[in-house]
Amino acid sequence: MEKLSKGLKVIHHLSAITPWPSSVTPMAAASDGTQGFWPAGFSTGAVSANIKYSNRKDLMLLVTDGPATAAALFTQNRCCAAPITLSREHLQHSLFSVRAIVCNSGNANAATGEKGLNDARAMAEAVACELSLKPEEVLVASTGVIGQLLPMENVLAGISSLAATMQRESVLDAAGAIMTTDTFPKFFSLELQLSGGSIRLSGIAKGSGMICPNMATMLAFLTTDAIIEPALLHEALEKANRHSFNAITVDGDTSTNDMVSILASGIGPEIKAESSDFTLFCDALEALMTFLAKLIVIDGEGATKLVGITVKGAADDRDAELAARTIAQSSLVKTAIHGEDANWGRIIAAAGRSGAIFNQKDLELHFNELPILKPYLVADFSEEAAATIMAKDSYTITLRLGNGSGEATIWSCDLSKEYIDINGSYRS
Amino acid sequence: MEKLSKGLKVIHHLSAITPWPSSVTPMAAASDGTQGFWPAGFSTGAVSANIKYSNRKDLMLLVTDGPATAAALFTQNRCCAAPITLSREHLQHSLFSVRAIVCNSGNANAATGEKGLNDARAMAEAVACELSLKPEEVLVASTGVIGQLLPMENVLAGISSLAATMQRESVLDAAGAIMTTDTFPKFFSLELQLSGGSIRLSGIAKGSGMICPNMATMLAFLTTDAIIEPALLHEALEKANRHSFNAITVDGDTSTNDMVSILASGIGPEIKAESSDFTLFCDALEALMTFLAKLIVIDGEGATKLVGITVKGAADDRDAELAARTIAQSSLVKTAIHGEDANWGRIIAAAGRSGAIFNQKDLELHFNELPILKPYLVADFSEEAAATIMAKDSYTITLRLGNGSGEATIWSCDLSKEYIDINGSYRS
Repeated sequence: MEKLSKGLKVIHHLSAITPWPSSVTPMAAASDGTQGFWPAGFSTGAVSANIKYSNRKDLMLLVTDGPATAAALFTQNRCCAAPITLSREHLQHSLFSVRAIVCNSGNANAATGEKGLNDARAMAEAVACELSLKPEEVLVASTGVIGQLLPMENVLAGISSLAATMQRESVLDAAGAIMTTDTFPKFFSLELQLSGGSIRLSGIAKGSGMICPNMATMLAFLTTDAIIEPALLHEALEKANRHSFNAITVDGDTSTNDMVSILASGIGPEIKAESSDFTLFCDALEALMTFLAKLIVIDGEGATKLVGITVKGAADDRDAELAARTIAQSSLVKTAIHGEDANWGRIIAAAGRSGAIFNQKDLELHFNELPILKPYLVADFSEEAAATIMAKDSYTITLRLGNGSGEATIWSCDLSKEYIDINGSYRS
Repeated sequence: MEKLSKGLKVIHHLSAITPWPSSVTPMAAASDGTQGFWPAGFSTGAVSANIKYSNRKDLMLLVTDGPATAAALFTQNRCCAAPITLSREHLQHSLFSVRAIVCNSGNANAATGEKGLNDARAMAEAVACELSLKPEEVLVASTGVIGQLLPMENVLAGISSLAATMQRESVLDAAGAIMTTDTFPKFFSLELQLSGGSIRLSGIAKGSGMICPNMATMLAFLTTDAIIEPALLHEALEKANRHSFNAITVDGDTSTNDMVSILASGIGPEIKAESSDFTLFCDALEALMTFLAKLIVIDGEGATKLVGITVKGAADDRDAELAARTIAQSSLVKTAIHGEDANWGRIIAAAGRSGAIFNQKDLELHFNELPILKPYLVADFSEEAAATIMAKDSYTITLRLGNGSGEATIWSCDLSKEYIDINGSYRS
């Protein structure tokens, strides 16, 4: 299983470079193939429903043993998909108490009108019927091509066969079933030590095109066994999302189907508002979400590099994000990263058109620790040293604007010919 | 001369499809190689100065017989290049009376600090010295790689040899000398019938990467023999620019060196404010600039298609432009155009994230005259008919938002593997 090995290699590599909070024990996916397990109170199943792909699992069900506290963030795209509309509604109607999430890949059920909304509703109802739940306790997510109706016969047949596949022991099947153009499944677990005992935080996510999340990413399903109030869970999710899924870009296109959700089964210790445990929980959640977000960038369509674009010294954080995002999305910067060419002129040109306020003579640029551009536009660096850094799988570009203390980081990838190949014929 | 033939083919092709105002006679570049000539009062010369390229002309001088009225628009990029700073200053100091424009390719003289500004100043002074002008009567433009100092010895030697090459009869050398990654020279002339006689309008332009002009394009030098006040000339230029150079994108990156200028030699009839002649002049100027702007898109890095993205029925023109620009810059839309895949979902997804206000059920989409998406998200079209349109070199995508009467068009191209090739190693 080559794809899995690539994923595991990436996960182990990233696991080594990501700084985890001290209270966290990363439970990196085991390389023996067991792939870790869900927190207490959760299980998942996956089947091949022949929605678009054949010979692979494309339908996933995440189920809780009892009512779980839920929080979710959805795409801000005005053309949002039917399952987004439905899940938003169900979250409200269930008063943030959720029992299951069903998700298919291969078809986004987006731009499908009334029929699409009825199909999403039918998916929730089928799951509710199988598991004796209320339909509003079921969230629905879809990912894949836009503008085609779901093959509902296959979807419903798939749902009725899912129950037999449920297990807590492996997240691999679930992570694999939600993939589209992803090349490896993305999942991670960690254990967090709180005052009342330890809890587990786990998540699966998928990319890998139309990635420029606005309030949520393509898809990420997070779980924990902690006890936590809905409002508090939402607060933690929103906070963590800002610097993780909302801080990545593959191609600047915000999807119609973005959704990130977290379910808390309430089996472990309780996390109270304004407690030190809540701070620990927020930090751990942000670390987990950042890790999964980076996996999405690494597996971005055609991507071969993960590059952190950090802007410091901006007038404020908003200005810093504006500049970092513009650099991160520039096709010229992304192709230079791909070509391993230290073309710093493109980086400052992107900052210059971003709208962020600065004086060009104050700019300072670093690749990792190597100074590339010093104040007064002095670019006196070793091309060899720069080339060595740019040859790496992952590095950081830091631009200082010299105009304040605003700071932001966006994680981006390179733009390669494979992106063109993948997207020149994705629909067909 | 294969590149020229491609250019001429494109120019003739476009000449056939562009609607010219009725008072205009297009003077399409002659296919016999003489390539048209400048309006009365102008001449140009070009030499090889070995600035970056060898074996090709890379230094251009445009000279007026007497003082010419000037207007110019410059990049809004905060990291603007030294020649932009200098030309802006000279335009003010000369009270919009200009005698010459000198332009080099192969080096942008951008992000070069004090030394770069002095180099741009030295270029103007050298031209002034050769032609017995005041330095502030000389505008300077540069295009090419960012962050490298100009080889001033070569530049100054080139300037002193330019005078011997001046001629009115051919614009080809001038258009060729300002090219960077362009594959053919871009120029066009037209004759305009006014109440007091006819005038000529001519222009040269270049692309072809870092193209998403904001207030001006990469480089365009326009000329006319009309008599016109500076303020009126500026008004006409700004108006025409809005729907021409400011309405194109190749890669979404606004250059550090964008500049579009127009010089009026004042030999022909006078154009007065609020006259019907002024309206004719504005229309003709916009038609010429739109034509040159389209040539830049056609010759965009790696581009194989010219696609007009029109958004109608928006709340206002600003909303329409927001949606059109977002669609035009979407990597996913551009790769689908390249792959000739009628992936309409990506088009409405881009509109959905643009910030423009609409309800997705009201959307209507056409490729040329073919309905792709009807209200209530009904996508019932012949894939073959769509494929036939998408196989063309040029076509129009029209999205109606159903929310008002705002309208905008952005001209864009596809995103191909050649773009990655060109930009993975452009600097080296």
